[in-house]
Amino acid sequence: MSQQVISIGLEGIVVAETELSLVDGINGLLVYRNHWARDLAIEKTFEEVAHLLWYGHLPDREELNRLKSQLVANRTLPSYVKAAIDLIPSDVDMMSVLRTGVSLLGNAGHDWPPTMDQVISLTAKVPTIVAYRQARLEGREPVEPRSDLDHTANYLYMLKGTEPNQAHVRALDAYLILTQEHGMNASTFSGRVVSSTRSDLISAVTAAIGALKGPLHGGAPSGVIEMMEQIGTPENAEPWLRKALENGERIMGFGHRVYKTRDPRSEALQVVASQLSADDPWFALATHVEKVALKLLEEYKPGRKLNTNVEFYAAAVMRAVGLPDTLFTPTFAVSRTVGWCAHILEQAANNRIIRPESLYIGQMPK
Amino acid sequence: MSQQVISIGLEGIVVAETELSLVDGINGLLVYRNHWARDLAIEKTFEEVAHLLWYGHLPDREELNRLKSQLVANRTLPSYVKAAIDLIPSDVDMMSVLRTGVSLLGNAGHDWPPTMDQVISLTAKVPTIVAYRQARLEGREPVEPRSDLDHTANYLYMLKGTEPNQAHVRALDAYLILTQEHGMNASTFSGRVVSSTRSDLISAVTAAIGALKGPLHGGAPSGVIEMMEQIGTPENAEPWLRKALENGERIMGFGHRVYKTRDPRSEALQVVASQLSADDPWFALATHVEKVALKLLEEYKPGRKLNTNVEFYAAAVMRAVGLPDTLFTPTFAVSRTVGWCAHILEQAANNRIIRPESLYIGQMPK
Repeated sequence: MSQQVISIGLEGIVVAETELSLVDGINGLLVYRNHWARDLAIEKTFEEVAHLLWYGHLPDREELNRLKSQLVANRTLPSYVKAAIDLIPSDVDMMSVLRTGVSLLGNAGHDWPPTMDQVISLTAKVPTIVAYRQARLEGREPVEPRSDLDHTANYLYMLKGTEPNQAHVRALDAYLILTQEHGMNASTFSGRVVSSTRSDLISAVTAAIGALKGPLHGGAPSGVIEMMEQIGTPENAEPWLRKALENGERIMGFGHRVYKTRDPRSEALQVVASQLSADDPWFALATHVEKVALKLLEEYKPGRKLNTNVEFYAAAVMRAVGLPDTLFTPTFAVSRTVGWCAHILEQAANNRIIRPESLYIGQMPK
Repeated sequence: MSQQVISIGLEGIVVAETELSLVDGINGLLVYRNHWARDLAIEKTFEEVAHLLWYGHLPDREELNRLKSQLVANRTLPSYVKAAIDLIPSDVDMMSVLRTGVSLLGNAGHDWPPTMDQVISLTAKVPTIVAYRQARLEGREPVEPRSDLDHTANYLYMLKGTEPNQAHVRALDAYLILTQEHGMNASTFSGRVVSSTRSDLISAVTAAIGALKGPLHGGAPSGVIEMMEQIGTPENAEPWLRKALENGERIMGFGHRVYKTRDPRSEALQVVASQLSADDPWFALATHVEKVALKLLEEYKPGRKLNTNVEFYAAAVMRAVGLPDTLFTPTFAVSRTVGWCAHILEQAANNRIIRPESLYIGQMPK
């Protein structure tokens, strides 16, 4: 009792040493295991970066093929999971469905410690749960996963039921890589707390999904999309933004709680969007709107250094790919599952129960 | 970054001020909101203590009747939840089933902040989920909850499908009261972390169930039961225990990580078990074995102060009531749901996101 430190919210308290990522908001740095996340998003694929986070190094050709095959082999949902999802009322939000869907995957084989096979199996199935439910909500017959497609392409294929556009796959892949991991956020932390009791991987990831569901965590880029839709064309960007700034309105997609300089994730997505501008008008619009907005923000709010945040380009990607608002946070869960699993493996490798204290401020009985 | 405190495991870090409970292991004290938990277990009922934890005071007659009616009115599971539970393979452990069952209760009405109606509805349904599944596993047709029975009696009734024995109800009620709340343990903490993102009550309690599933947290009194079964009769207690101690074996049910003096929960259960010794031979056996064990522990390990822990009498209660091992932790969840909900309500009343940090110990990219 004598050495108590009081820290409501745990701000500034380090609960784990990690080799997984460095989030340095002051300098705008995001590192995944000795690599710039920015470079990984531009140069690598979902599977390669997942391999990096889980195994500690980028895969060689053989390792990559093995991981891809394992993911492909594990995408299909057990039939009882599909049947149970079908029973959930249609007005239940997708994050609640995903939480239940993942919980349903818990079986007699799930013991502590978590294994790489479990991690791969779970990561392979999360997109299938989301896409399966989405098809049902849209009144389509869900398609089975396609073994010739990589993780991101297959997710898009299952979501739409049609051949995915390559530019969309490329952009979504970059977005998913950039959201795979981001230090000790609340969802990752809840997963580590659950895992630290020697509970199983499914329990830990189910908890993390519940935390990501909270609007203080899994914030969605809906505001940016609304703005982009109102702007509509590149020519309309300057007059629209100028008018908004004259009216004292906030420009969505600029400024961030953690990153005090440019968000490295938006930087990477800007590169990818520029490369794809010819392929989709939303990418062209986004890169143009960003340029104009940064110019006008400097003009109207000089010195405020309002930089582009990840939501800005996330919005462009989501809108281009054609995902509805209701799929933003679930899609975030599709990628963050990789980081949750990496943290849960790391926690298990050197486990110690996470058990803080509370301070009783009530009265004592007489 | 300059004010970082490193605390792997968060031992000694206070993450919340609470009016709910004081756990003082040094002095063997357990307080629930200005009342000794020991006295509450001996004198009050499950519903009265839940009212105390949720509303901050023991109920008057009218308040108690209202809470009881609300719990009774909310016990029945929606039919889709029952149908979904029926789809889960029979070799899936009960805690995984309960995690899924609670997750399935999430619906469009579950938003942040959590409400008292949601808390009552969830607490009412947790025993029904466990009992429903147990009946299916035993090949019995699940019985519907009975509106003339209180929470604990109805749980026992649903578990067995037969009229519950009053002495068993009384003992189980005391046990459930004593496990409703216990400070900032790992399951309660995981629930508060999830809730702090403004996620819903269902997400938070689903996370807590996942944490309680871990053997470092929801430890079961199986070892004590085995010992009691081997001892079998009061006359055999002294020779059996003496032989075990001569062989250097550990006596199960004595000593505790937190409580350095007598566990106040075992103290209360001892009082209740003594009162019921005439009603069930297991209570008589337990009180006798405890007396002999304490005498012999002092003789063989003088000065070690190995006191009776809560598992000792929990074992007597569970065995008397006739619950199999597989129901110990789920039954713990039935009672702890009250404490989880109280903490989640308290967190929401003065919310701040719980978001610690991690320290990157990997290499930096070149």
